[in-house]
Amino acid sequence: MEMNQNITDDVVKCATDRAADPGIFPACKAGKSEYTASERSSRGGVDFPVSVVLPAGGTGERTGLRTPKQFCTFLGRPLISYTIHAFERVSWIQRIMVVVAKENTELMTDIIQRYQHTKVQTVPGGSTRHRSICNGVLALGEDGEDKRPEVVIIHDAVRPFVEEDFLYKIVMTAKEQGCSESDLEFGTECLHLALQYCGTNAKLIEGPPTLWKVTYKRDLAAAEFIIKETLSQSACVITGPSLHAVTLAGALWKAFGTFGMELDVVPDLLGNNSNFLLKENNFIQLSVNSSLSEVEAILWALESSRVLLNSVVVIWVHLRGLDGLAISGTMTEPAPLIMELASAAKPRNVLLFGIQLHQPNDLEQWERSALRVAEITSALIRERNPALVGQLLQA
Amino acid sequence: MEMNQNITDDVVKCATDRAADPGIFPACKAGKSEYTASERSSRGGVDFPVSVVLPAGGTGERTGLRTPKQFCTFLGRPLISYTIHAFERVSWIQRIMVVVAKENTELMTDIIQRYQHTKVQTVPGGSTRHRSICNGVLALGEDGEDKRPEVVIIHDAVRPFVEEDFLYKIVMTAKEQGCSESDLEFGTECLHLALQYCGTNAKLIEGPPTLWKVTYKRDLAAAEFIIKETLSQSACVITGPSLHAVTLAGALWKAFGTFGMELDVVPDLLGNNSNFLLKENNFIQLSVNSSLSEVEAILWALESSRVLLNSVVVIWVHLRGLDGLAISGTMTEPAPLIMELASAAKPRNVLLFGIQLHQPNDLEQWERSALRVAEITSALIRERNPALVGQLLQA
Repeated sequence: MEMNQNITDDVVKCATDRAADPGIFPACKAGKSEYTASERSSRGGVDFPVSVVLPAGGTGERTGLRTPKQFCTFLGRPLISYTIHAFERVSWIQRIMVVVAKENTELMTDIIQRYQHTKVQTVPGGSTRHRSICNGVLALGEDGEDKRPEVVIIHDAVRPFVEEDFLYKIVMTAKEQGCSESDLEFGTECLHLALQYCGTNAKLIEGPPTLWKVTYKRDLAAAEFIIKETLSQSACVITGPSLHAVTLAGALWKAFGTFGMELDVVPDLLGNNSNFLLKENNFIQLSVNSSLSEVEAILWALESSRVLLNSVVVIWVHLRGLDGLAISGTMTEPAPLIMELASAAKPRNVLLFGIQLHQPNDLEQWERSALRVAEITSALIRERNPALVGQLLQA
Repeated sequence: MEMNQNITDDVVKCATDRAADPGIFPACKAGKSEYTASERSSRGGVDFPVSVVLPAGGTGERTGLRTPKQFCTFLGRPLISYTIHAFERVSWIQRIMVVVAKENTELMTDIIQRYQHTKVQTVPGGSTRHRSICNGVLALGEDGEDKRPEVVIIHDAVRPFVEEDFLYKIVMTAKEQGCSESDLEFGTECLHLALQYCGTNAKLIEGPPTLWKVTYKRDLAAAEFIIKETLSQSACVITGPSLHAVTLAGALWKAFGTFGMELDVVPDLLGNNSNFLLKENNFIQLSVNSSLSEVEAILWALESSRVLLNSVVVIWVHLRGLDGLAISGTMTEPAPLIMELASAAKPRNVLLFGIQLHQPNDLEQWERSALRVAEITSALIRERNPALVGQLLQA
């Protein structure tokens, strides 16, 4: 079996540090790619078997936490699940072999099941990191001739932010050029060991700074920040038929631009708009109706359309005093209702919040209110704080 | 002039990464010190002149932000102000010379004024980092013979989390042992340059991992996390005379323990308790009275007792339905009042939030409510989110 091992450890400095898609969105962002989908296709794509070894046996002592860092959770999901998903969404990656310490095998099996990882198998670790990697590579080789990978990517489980473009670059270099010793001057310990003991070729490829390794406790905070930033890049505003709501949506769209967030404004989630239910992580329902029926419909539609691996934020913005009913005094009191809905939705990974907007008297007040709604909404989406679900805030 | 230059760049790995006090608290935490106050005293203390050069001319291109990172704000305060304060609070440090690019001199002067830095002077930077450092050192030497520092600490402006113990270790090594070339094998570029061109001795001293340099955008998130964590280590609960409030305080004290926060429970902020006004960053006022008069008193007392360089969180917890007035129907509606107070307090760096706790029916419900108050309170204190001030949340 001939294998090219590409070591992605010890990332070299680079000029930018944008938040990368940590494998959270099912949709691919072609516009951002170094190689676009069509380029990949014209270059012939990856038409040979590629698999991954994820050494995940670390004890995480440098974070000062009891849980090994690959099992620390971010917004309710373990770090290693983000890393696995980053590989799993790459269509040309066949299998992912996770090497775990024996005492964590059960935990790992639970994670694979809970987060519906389909390409993953586990193998017990060895007495050192290098023996563990070896176990992983050997396990991949135990398959029949036709399934054996031609390229194996060895990747730290605690580097969750890996992108398809970078992986493409790695495997194409490995496949096309073969590997050389020319880059060894920047090499790492792993690189030397691979050359010396594994009987394979190895080459160092520069990675983006987003590939950095979660090592210290502060890195956990940085990783959470990147995940939160990625989850809050966009939101879908549902206006319903009310003209007031449509006007507010326009003002929100403008205000959100200043917060660096993209808004999609739709009248409802029917027809083609139901696609948002498959990919969007943030919904803002504008409503002149205090009954919360539209929010109930979103919660129901979300539940029936996808498994929510990451938290989804749903914000109900109530344009109070615009539904006629308010005048007749028969308006439902929404505060207890939203708390009840939020409590039921929270275990299903949906974070529900409410905002009440009082009917503005004039244009100036209207603009101020829209800005206030945008400020609160974007704060709720960015923080994704489970402790505040069910609250009815005032704009 | 003989000077020992101690380069604190390029920090070596270390086993723990606890959040360090980023110079936020005026109080010294002797228990945490490697050298306690008495040890420092028995070792003779630092009885010779020590000054600091802070090179702050960087353009911050690696963060991908327009603002140079030393001027990026965290909870409303620029990063460099945290770094300066970390040195300024050390009694034996005489002067801090900040080296800034000419175009940022005015900005730096504003920061010095606004954050009341008293030991700081500025000097224009040179064409390279090393020339800038040289300018800073020379500027310190221009003083009269008696004021010239014997040891100069050169410290990156973008490493805000520096502790007195580490500084003590540095200057004592510099003073007592003189400096040697024995540690040069781990040396950095700066260390070599200092030896080669400055005609001084230099020694590399291992720093804690908290001394890490804010370089990438993710580091800004990590720095904010550490600042927030430091600001939310403790809170002061003021109960007033109500027995219900005292009982709730007991339950909160228990619940906060599980969140890793320390609570001080006091009946009021009079007498010795007024010391909390000088140092505490979080206040929780329990109240059976809907008038918010106790909160107004805290806001007033805070304003007259100290300059609020860091945000202070004040949370009003209203035990609703316990004041008798509720029954007679003449209760003040607190929501508009708290929003008004919060808007006035926000520019003064006080973040005011409200929580209403409905009178529990039985002991079980009481305990659940207390846990809920603790959950919301600790979330508000940890996040310190200005977008949510003035909100009246429900527990």
